[in-house]
Amino acid sequence: MLSQNQIKHIVSLKSKKFREESHQFIAEGHKLVMDLLDSPYKIAAVYALSGWILENLGFIQKKQIPVFEIFPREMKRMSALSTPSPVLAVIEIPTPFPSAGSPTPFPSPTGEGGKSSEGLQLALDDIRDPGNLGTIIRIADWFGIDKIFCSETCVDLYNPKVVQATMGSIARINVQYVILEKLLEKIFDRIPVYGTFLDGENLFEQDLSGGGIILIGNESRGISPSLARFVSKRVVIPSSGKSGSGKAESLNASAATAIICAEFRRQGREAAKHEN
Amino acid sequence: MLSQNQIKHIVSLKSKKFREESHQFIAEGHKLVMDLLDSPYKIAAVYALSGWILENLGFIQKKQIPVFEIFPREMKRMSALSTPSPVLAVIEIPTPFPSAGSPTPFPSPTGEGGKSSEGLQLALDDIRDPGNLGTIIRIADWFGIDKIFCSETCVDLYNPKVVQATMGSIARINVQYVILEKLLEKIFDRIPVYGTFLDGENLFEQDLSGGGIILIGNESRGISPSLARFVSKRVVIPSSGKSGSGKAESLNASAATAIICAEFRRQGREAAKHEN
Repeated sequence: MLSQNQIKHIVSLKSKKFREESHQFIAEGHKLVMDLLDSPYKIAAVYALSGWILENLGFIQKKQIPVFEIFPREMKRMSALSTPSPVLAVIEIPTPFPSAGSPTPFPSPTGEGGKSSEGLQLALDDIRDPGNLGTIIRIADWFGIDKIFCSETCVDLYNPKVVQATMGSIARINVQYVILEKLLEKIFDRIPVYGTFLDGENLFEQDLSGGGIILIGNESRGISPSLARFVSKRVVIPSSGKSGSGKAESLNASAATAIICAEFRRQGREAAKHEN
Repeated sequence: MLSQNQIKHIVSLKSKKFREESHQFIAEGHKLVMDLLDSPYKIAAVYALSGWILENLGFIQKKQIPVFEIFPREMKRMSALSTPSPVLAVIEIPTPFPSAGSPTPFPSPTGEGGKSSEGLQLALDDIRDPGNLGTIIRIADWFGIDKIFCSETCVDLYNPKVVQATMGSIARINVQYVILEKLLEKIFDRIPVYGTFLDGENLFEQDLSGGGIILIGNESRGISPSLARFVSKRVVIPSSGKSGSGKAESLNASAATAIICAEFRRQGREAAKHEN
């Protein structure tokens, strides 16, 4: 049985203000919690129904993490989900770097932006929708993207909706909040910066077998003018007539990210084939 | 000034039950309302702030649609958005076909599933997330997909979150709720049915220059066993090692849809080039 204060604390973590105060966030569901247990994140505590504890006790004990058995009605009060899961974890937010928001607990990169010409990274300019950020992190995980840089105006990584939408990929992807202008200014003359613009060149006709940074713009306004000047490769995902007839103004930010990452990886595999 | 009953009616349209009773749904925001005004949908009424009416009166008058000037506080009460827009439309849901859910008001297809080998269509198996359905409709619009078939367990097309996530594409894409088993059974021996499975063949190594139906599975369970048997082309979007290392279990349903549609269109353009 949890105290009212414990429940109140966990519920408070839905709000960014309280997450920042306590340096904690929540994650719910078996896969997400297991992925985080198996990551550089530090888990403060696990709250679970008896059935879940019974099934996973061995694993949890090995990790030496406090586990609280709770009742379904307590889970219902704490959960941020409309259908609560049998397990919820409270996780420590890594101590922020002096000049940025909350970084994920992954090693700091050597030469911000990556040195390798093979490296592929994402820079997110003012992504506001939690579902989009979570989905983009999941895409990055699928396609082996090294790292994601978020502008400081992006939605908070530890927003429960972001965490849930990553489906566990938050445990594996290095996300850092930075001043994108500064980052891009530092690297744009060494590393290609790709950005989508309606008047860009056909994405599929570019040589994408190397690496670079893919800059993804805000959901309604696209890439900010202050960042557009750093984009060396202006590309477009061509639309295909018929019902669309160019009337769909744009693709959703995460859909565009998925297509661009997939095309980089497709061309990378093609290039590797020809080398052999 | 609206009556309490008018406001109450509009607010009630957030619920599926009331949408079905009154055969109406709501759409908010300038672009979405303009796209719907320019579509086969029948608009019952437009509710807007004075500034919006002033700017768009000429266009609205031509359409002969009742327009109600409302106050921001009324909009705030009616809106399903956290940041209300200056315009909200109430739209008629087309009369349902006898054996299915709500169809969009587009011409009924000849030979369900499409006859042309060039035609590309989507079939959605139990897509539950409103954001996903809306995003998939937007993707279909961008890539000129003829039509979307939804299983009857998919989220309701006229759910305000779906409508908003389409960003206007709902006005152009033909969406029908059908019993997918029946549809696929009827056409699977004539038309290729593509479905993603983790043990499928590399999507990018398939010949996708023709048409077919792309079957997209449920967000957590994937394609139902009852539908999997109709899939003639089992494909996978290959993941790329490194941070991912195959740990991301899957891509989000709309991200996968985006990548598959983009690859069909890329190969279609390549094939057209070689023909010329």
